[in-house]
Amino acid sequence: MRKLARKKIRNIKPYKPGKPIKELERELGISERDIIKLASNENPIGPSPRAIKAIRESIDLIHRYPDGSSFYLKKKLASKLRLKPQNIILGNGSDEIIDIVTKAFLEEDEEAIISEPSFLEYRIIVKTRGARIKASPMELPSVLGGKGSSRRFAYNIDDVLRSITRKTKLIFIGNPDNPTGSYLTKKELAYFLKKCPKKVIVVFDEAYREFVDKRDYSNPIDFIDKHSVIILRTFSKAYGLAGLRIGYAVTSEKLAGWMERVRQPFNVNLLAQIAAESALDDKAHLSKTKAVIKKGREYLEKDLKRLGFDIIKTPANFLLISYRGVKGTDLFKSLLPYGVIIRDMKVYGLPAWVRVNVGTMDENRRLIKTLKRLNYGVSR
Amino acid sequence: MRKLARKKIRNIKPYKPGKPIKELERELGISERDIIKLASNENPIGPSPRAIKAIRESIDLIHRYPDGSSFYLKKKLASKLRLKPQNIILGNGSDEIIDIVTKAFLEEDEEAIISEPSFLEYRIIVKTRGARIKASPMELPSVLGGKGSSRRFAYNIDDVLRSITRKTKLIFIGNPDNPTGSYLTKKELAYFLKKCPKKVIVVFDEAYREFVDKRDYSNPIDFIDKHSVIILRTFSKAYGLAGLRIGYAVTSEKLAGWMERVRQPFNVNLLAQIAAESALDDKAHLSKTKAVIKKGREYLEKDLKRLGFDIIKTPANFLLISYRGVKGTDLFKSLLPYGVIIRDMKVYGLPAWVRVNVGTMDENRRLIKTLKRLNYGVSR
Repeated sequence: MRKLARKKIRNIKPYKPGKPIKELERELGISERDIIKLASNENPIGPSPRAIKAIRESIDLIHRYPDGSSFYLKKKLASKLRLKPQNIILGNGSDEIIDIVTKAFLEEDEEAIISEPSFLEYRIIVKTRGARIKASPMELPSVLGGKGSSRRFAYNIDDVLRSITRKTKLIFIGNPDNPTGSYLTKKELAYFLKKCPKKVIVVFDEAYREFVDKRDYSNPIDFIDKHSVIILRTFSKAYGLAGLRIGYAVTSEKLAGWMERVRQPFNVNLLAQIAAESALDDKAHLSKTKAVIKKGREYLEKDLKRLGFDIIKTPANFLLISYRGVKGTDLFKSLLPYGVIIRDMKVYGLPAWVRVNVGTMDENRRLIKTLKRLNYGVSR
Repeated sequence: MRKLARKKIRNIKPYKPGKPIKELERELGISERDIIKLASNENPIGPSPRAIKAIRESIDLIHRYPDGSSFYLKKKLASKLRLKPQNIILGNGSDEIIDIVTKAFLEEDEEAIISEPSFLEYRIIVKTRGARIKASPMELPSVLGGKGSSRRFAYNIDDVLRSITRKTKLIFIGNPDNPTGSYLTKKELAYFLKKCPKKVIVVFDEAYREFVDKRDYSNPIDFIDKHSVIILRTFSKAYGLAGLRIGYAVTSEKLAGWMERVRQPFNVNLLAQIAAESALDDKAHLSKTKAVIKKGREYLEKDLKRLGFDIIKTPANFLLISYRGVKGTDLFKSLLPYGVIIRDMKVYGLPAWVRVNVGTMDENRRLIKTLKRLNYGVSR
């Protein structure tokens, strides 16, 4: 029976999500209420209250198919971005949009360039499409033995450009990337797009854009008219709607048209559309989210350093930490009995690291307290 | 720029959904409340009240990613079907599961056999995958000049079997099919699977199964152990959750394993999982739905015949109707100013037909009344 599966998918390792709260509850008998999850970069203050209200008012409509054209949401996004609805494609999370991109543009005998390490879904989706992956190593921070900045990953743009061949169709750039936090500065972006041939489509995944507070941070949307670029955004992070699955892409009308052609007609559910519309209007929720992340990130950086952790900083809502050679898997497991879920980075080729996202201040303090209780920073 | 799109997707015609109520409101200024939609085979009595309650209680969780393994829903479905959770794959509607099937099994140089006419998404998804389509004509009802039964479409199983080549990997069978209503009897299914090589996977789409009230109706789930079959079911129709997007496939653990491998980790949203679980427990809602459909279908068949319409019957919650050569497009358009949305069947190669789904009795009567007002059955 093995032969029934497509050749190129036989060795795919499925993506392993952050451990769900309910799973820990089942496994260790810890009550849901006593568990904190800092493993999936979710919004610690929860969904926008306006989105919740909008959902409540629309539940009775869920026997109807969603609007396949997402008319109202596209209109609102377009007006916010000063673009046309035709520049926008919605998806069942940006994961699905990556899939749509590969379906629209990537032939099986073509290549996608993906930096390493970076978000694993790029690799999985390109493999599922059946196309080839070309890895381009990132500049490692000095804590990882790299020549780059001491505590940050960075893209090696020249290596990415050198990796382009006749067969290259896509380049994936997390901006900033998960889990490395690397991003392109304005200058780097301009240089990169100038050198990159237009027959290569550059996909900028900006799931964490809203958290970035850097003056030199690039904005690839400015380039959609003159270059082949697709920008991915999501409602899963700063907007707090991860459970509903909704993300979007911004690109030229031309590229968007091809993507629309391979999109499934009802890919974005009705409540997600309605919630996203209201979340866009909820400026108070967004500001509060950003403030909570900023404060929490500073607190965690400081207190984790004090405990003796090595830290790789990111401009997003998470950081990478490592403790004197302790395996990430062990660090992850040691916290579970205390109801604290973080993320092992072994699958990203970082076996001594874990990823922790910023929570509420109570959650952040609980993480530090639990680490102390486990004697990190003391006897170890 | 044309060259950026994959060759095989350039000529895909996107699926055209039933006209949304809001769109008619925008275009003709008819209030939403005065519009009835009998165009998308939705549940006329709305979603299960238990599902609505479950959603209300879970809205506050939507900043969390859904459970990627759908642990509780799979468990409930498995127990209902007397199978294991490993026999079940969930999808963002069964549309997505068709996509997952093509990703897992269909190489670009392989073929899928699709009956004609039948649900257009099979064709679109196979084309998007880049594989070949082989069409097998259905037995037409005599109202369409066929030799078959007077008012029903039927599968030509022998033609399907004859169409199998060395390159055939998938066969799609709507059971019953949308829009034709054709289905396999127990005897036909046993015969078909006996003759069909096991290297060919047969996909039975049973979106409308719950409405079928025929003693000879086949149940392909009985064959998952010994044959290569995948059965698609959905919560969009009888369970009234079309807006939330959730469907599932039932198959052998082996085939399910390959499908899991190419599925996206968070393809089914959190509220859909929770609503589906509760809907499965809501037997009262399901019985009521079935009764409304049965009564309404009989009423429509009788009254439309009385008005002089030709009718093609189906065992599902819709029927095909035609009026003395009037174009389906014209019939569809003539009803819009009266706030009645039905479905033009031109894209299915049935230019003189429209599809009407059974509504509530009020909606069914309104359809008949509007047709009379337009002088169908009188002066025409």
